[in-house]
Amino acid sequence: MKYIDGGITSPKGFKAAGVASGIRKKGRKDVALVYSEQPAQAAAVYTLNKFQAAPLQVTKEHLKDGIAQAIVVNSGVANACMGQQGLMSAKEMAQITADCLLIKAEDVVVASTGVIGVPLPMELITKGIKDASKALSYDGGADAAEAIMTTDLVKKEVACQLEIGGKTVTIGAMAKGSGMIHPNMATMLGFITTDASIESDCLQHVLKKATDASFNMVSVDGDTSTNDMVAILANGLAENPKITMESEYLKDFEAAVTEVCIRLAKMIAQDGEGATKLIEVEVVGAKSLEDARKGARAICSSNLVKAAIFGEDANWGRIVTAMGYSGAEVDPSIVDVYIGELLVAEKGTGLKFDEEKASQILKQKEIKLKVDLNLGSEEATAWGCDLSYDYVKINADYRS
Amino acid sequence: MKYIDGGITSPKGFKAAGVASGIRKKGRKDVALVYSEQPAQAAAVYTLNKFQAAPLQVTKEHLKDGIAQAIVVNSGVANACMGQQGLMSAKEMAQITADCLLIKAEDVVVASTGVIGVPLPMELITKGIKDASKALSYDGGADAAEAIMTTDLVKKEVACQLEIGGKTVTIGAMAKGSGMIHPNMATMLGFITTDASIESDCLQHVLKKATDASFNMVSVDGDTSTNDMVAILANGLAENPKITMESEYLKDFEAAVTEVCIRLAKMIAQDGEGATKLIEVEVVGAKSLEDARKGARAICSSNLVKAAIFGEDANWGRIVTAMGYSGAEVDPSIVDVYIGELLVAEKGTGLKFDEEKASQILKQKEIKLKVDLNLGSEEATAWGCDLSYDYVKINADYRS
Repeated sequence: MKYIDGGITSPKGFKAAGVASGIRKKGRKDVALVYSEQPAQAAAVYTLNKFQAAPLQVTKEHLKDGIAQAIVVNSGVANACMGQQGLMSAKEMAQITADCLLIKAEDVVVASTGVIGVPLPMELITKGIKDASKALSYDGGADAAEAIMTTDLVKKEVACQLEIGGKTVTIGAMAKGSGMIHPNMATMLGFITTDASIESDCLQHVLKKATDASFNMVSVDGDTSTNDMVAILANGLAENPKITMESEYLKDFEAAVTEVCIRLAKMIAQDGEGATKLIEVEVVGAKSLEDARKGARAICSSNLVKAAIFGEDANWGRIVTAMGYSGAEVDPSIVDVYIGELLVAEKGTGLKFDEEKASQILKQKEIKLKVDLNLGSEEATAWGCDLSYDYVKINADYRS
Repeated sequence: MKYIDGGITSPKGFKAAGVASGIRKKGRKDVALVYSEQPAQAAAVYTLNKFQAAPLQVTKEHLKDGIAQAIVVNSGVANACMGQQGLMSAKEMAQITADCLLIKAEDVVVASTGVIGVPLPMELITKGIKDASKALSYDGGADAAEAIMTTDLVKKEVACQLEIGGKTVTIGAMAKGSGMIHPNMATMLGFITTDASIESDCLQHVLKKATDASFNMVSVDGDTSTNDMVAILANGLAENPKITMESEYLKDFEAAVTEVCIRLAKMIAQDGEGATKLIEVEVVGAKSLEDARKGARAICSSNLVKAAIFGEDANWGRIVTAMGYSGAEVDPSIVDVYIGELLVAEKGTGLKFDEEKASQILKQKEIKLKVDLNLGSEEATAWGCDLSYDYVKINADYRS
């Protein structure tokens, strides 16, 4: 598997566009459209928040048959907590898209991100979708990636290729999400396209595995958005031997999708609101994968760890503290803690470490923390960012 | 039940002292001692963090018989993550205290709060305990309350009296904890004294109930310290009819202890690191008490809610979002949300509310948020504070 330049329009048969409809200020792009020339196998995973926004409800309904041909996304307004009106608007977004593209409304994935509790400006959205459908192109991926941004500072695109049964399969993806802890105008959205030929249930399986190891490991301090969604479309145009649950190619494909998702997840962490550093937390030696994940996520999400990293303070006690309340099985008397390569606590007890060296490590832009539980062989990695003054600033007065 | 001026030395037969031993800088008090003239029934609750600091382990052991006569606390060093050395030091603290007071080491409650992973300076502590034992007095409560502070800006004391069977029972208490999210030099500690006569198992029951409704409802963003502890000593000198599980007086006594704990909990929230506002979150209409508590705590702990309150932004979408991921049973289509008295969302849908009025409410120093789940009759209240620039500042470089 090798990375290539590109994004969601890199795989065969995908077009995209991103346009400014006027929902967001200053002429910023706010409507994205992705179109597959051929109906694609489709799968998605959704936020676990009990307040699921209207577009998620509509998308779930549309993906019941595992087929989709287009994705429509708007930024600026989340279309969440709008009751029946919200559902109507989400359905309308799908219908307008379908009309423009001459496909079925049931084959449209709908997503929104923005302020909660405000009605979608349907006139602007309608115009935006129409404009986007006219602007669709084989190199429109970057525009689409730009149109789904909110507080993101950089657009997030990835593409890669791998060989499956002698055929070149391409995977493209884009995401938005500016940090772990997301405001209502936040949300983590991910969209993956591929020309791989793959069975529907197998695609769902791959997406679930990939998101669990990537997007779900981006440090969320609990503020799981109402609108989070990751969707994948596979149109089969690569003409590889169809990937099934029994297929010898499944492992490679799954690894490639996972890699792509991890790369996007890291981009999201790095672009965290107010972030100055990327934090990567590895928990190894866990009894179960779930334990390793719980621990890595807890450390990555701890305000105290995040603030210490911002302050370049080798305060490993906070790492241990987060590990201790993560819910993972831990034996405090055998835990080792590393900051970068530096062992700072051994068997649960603080060492006299080289503060100078710790300080050098913490001056870097990417900080690696590692906890070895010494209990088993499972491990997991989570990504996050530091907690800075700017995080507070960005979130203190978001709506205005 | 009525509040009186005072603290842990208000009940009969309790003396206390707080002295500066030199552990902390600038001559700040750092060793606190509380002594009951007569062995007291004792109970305690401890942090759920798997890394329990040495003093907690020693206290647990000492309270197995439900009896204690003194409490010794130091601030500045947490004595956590120090392995065998830490256990030895905690035991030594108890022994020195016992020697000074001519009581059994097993009757001493030991607590520490401060930096993790640093050895206790036993020479200073020894001197501190000796000085404190000489300084013990019937009005030393305030000094003790001062000596357990770390980043706290104000000392936290409460006392109250109630009639039980014709006798006046006094309850005194002190706490430390400067905010919800505690650094390693943080920790929430609470100590309650009373001259009530009460059975040991009944005392444990009362303390558990009281802490669940108070200290455990102070918004902790998950950063549960390794050293959190709340202990209560009841020496019986009020000579009231002994309170038992069957006693008609149990309810009144439990209510009084709970009130005292809630008052301290609110003081802790108000004194949160960098806090500019106290947030009180009420979740009503829940199916279960646990659901109500989960929801109230999630909202109070949300960085996004906290940052919005700091910014005086009526961003109710964040309240709904936190409710949605809290794990509580929620039907999004029937939830009502209030900011102060102002209904901002009804049946899960945003209302066009008076922004001017919302702004006035959010300018106050105490902000009440309410969510009515409309599912049942259980309710709970949680307390927290806003997330400010100063929180980041305080926690970015704590050790230095």
